[in-house]
Amino acid sequence: MSRGLVQCVPNYSEGRRQEVIDAIVAPFRSASGVHLLDWRADPDHNRLVVTLAGYPQPLQDALLDSARAAIASIDLRIHVGAHPRIGAVDVVPFVPLRGISMQECVALARSFAARYARETGVPVYLYEEAALRPERRNLENVRRGQFEALVKEIGNPDRAPDAGEARVHPTAGATVIGARQFLVAFNINLRSRDFSAARAIARTIRASGGGLSHVKAVGVELQHKGMVQVSINITDFHINPLHEVLELVRTEATARGIEVAETEIYGMVPAEALVAAAAHSLLLTGFEPAQVLDLRLLDLLGHGEQ
Amino acid sequence: MSRGLVQCVPNYSEGRRQEVIDAIVAPFRSASGVHLLDWRADPDHNRLVVTLAGYPQPLQDALLDSARAAIASIDLRIHVGAHPRIGAVDVVPFVPLRGISMQECVALARSFAARYARETGVPVYLYEEAALRPERRNLENVRRGQFEALVKEIGNPDRAPDAGEARVHPTAGATVIGARQFLVAFNINLRSRDFSAARAIARTIRASGGGLSHVKAVGVELQHKGMVQVSINITDFHINPLHEVLELVRTEATARGIEVAETEIYGMVPAEALVAAAAHSLLLTGFEPAQVLDLRLLDLLGHGEQ
Repeated sequence: MSRGLVQCVPNYSEGRRQEVIDAIVAPFRSASGVHLLDWRADPDHNRLVVTLAGYPQPLQDALLDSARAAIASIDLRIHVGAHPRIGAVDVVPFVPLRGISMQECVALARSFAARYARETGVPVYLYEEAALRPERRNLENVRRGQFEALVKEIGNPDRAPDAGEARVHPTAGATVIGARQFLVAFNINLRSRDFSAARAIARTIRASGGGLSHVKAVGVELQHKGMVQVSINITDFHINPLHEVLELVRTEATARGIEVAETEIYGMVPAEALVAAAAHSLLLTGFEPAQVLDLRLLDLLGHGEQ
Repeated sequence: MSRGLVQCVPNYSEGRRQEVIDAIVAPFRSASGVHLLDWRADPDHNRLVVTLAGYPQPLQDALLDSARAAIASIDLRIHVGAHPRIGAVDVVPFVPLRGISMQECVALARSFAARYARETGVPVYLYEEAALRPERRNLENVRRGQFEALVKEIGNPDRAPDAGEARVHPTAGATVIGARQFLVAFNINLRSRDFSAARAIARTIRASGGGLSHVKAVGVELQHKGMVQVSINITDFHINPLHEVLELVRTEATARGIEVAETEIYGMVPAEALVAAAAHSLLLTGFEPAQVLDLRLLDLLGHGEQ
């Protein structure tokens, strides 16, 4: 198995009971080779989102310990929340971070899915890059009708799970496991109150509108700032780098007589995405990622740990 | 002692005998908490430059082991090379990298100097940020006349060492230990063959010419490229960020009707310097270094190691 670093962002259907949240998070605090970067519970969504980075083997072990805690305490038959879900452990995406390819993350997701179904009795659907059926690349298709519909439909051939038996776990439902690229949340604020302009720019730049292939975007009003925003998710920053997205928004804004005021990155971003932006703006040639001292060190430290 | 990460770039007066070079480098290969990032021996200079990153305690232990190997094998009375030197272990700078301040690196350099002089019998001069006398901030002043002059002059009050006895080690000379900021070698190539323009721009932008306070620069001809270059050392990229240096060179070049063609970073660069350039060019607001996933992880891994 690769020694590469993987990000993992498991989502659990519990955002209210602190003792359950603590039990789910606990295995990530104690595991060597796994780092708990963030966790946030939302009571309205009744959902917990944990952000981890780690090495494939210890990460899988800790994920299973955590899943057992969630499965033992969450009963989807009585679970209510604003966020769609089919399982106590709802979604587990693996994201390549350093020294591991997307192909290796797909293999990791698929082998983890088999082990997870075997050890927990919860059936698994594979999504995004790890999907075995094209329609399952899209999470919304997998989660259609949520837990309540899946209980009735799992026997249908089109809803058969990819791992485990075609039988929803009575209290813990089913789990969606997969592999995807790192998602960068990049918001661009425009010095304008013209909401329709922000919406039009968002439509123009996003993949669904014929724009950049790995960009999702919507227009947002920022009333406290007296501005409008193009709120963007970049689903593959290797293909659509931040500086190219910014340039395209700037071009579209300028054509409408609007200026770009500022931008923000919401949440985390891999160093690689910023190094690429720096290399572009500094006109760097012949630059190698191994020249970035801290990242070189991270690779060395990581190897020392395994 | 701080858990922060330190870069250290010891210079040794041996660039020819492979077995001596190997013995000097060996302690850095085996030490836990010390990472050998690079080493290069130059036979003309008869000098070895090692690039390390590590935690203060194991780094100091490994440096002493390495120094013992150098002192045992190098005899400055018969050493000849193009590079000025006063010691078998010539210069040892400590550079703050992550989670450690310059003040802490100064304290580290001074306490290491005392231990080094005590355990090896080699007198020490403190330089740059760790200097105890203002004129010793400048390495050239400390190394004036090299080993050969120091042997005669060490008894003079103005040449008294900062640690150890006022007596040059018979074969290993003296050592210069200090603390400084990370030095970024940043070269800017101009689409021009006008060498005098490159020299004029270098003079204008550098500290000694009244330009940026932490910039050294010279003009260089790149005959193979048919270009000229402004070759720059940024001695504190926090104060003079790369993008500001580039903008100033671009302004000066444009005023002379010359275009900036490309740039290069020679050797290593801290992620922080590139993140700053990216944040600037992407117009990022409210951005925190803790949002850079890999760097956050490096801090976590580092703490695990100590």
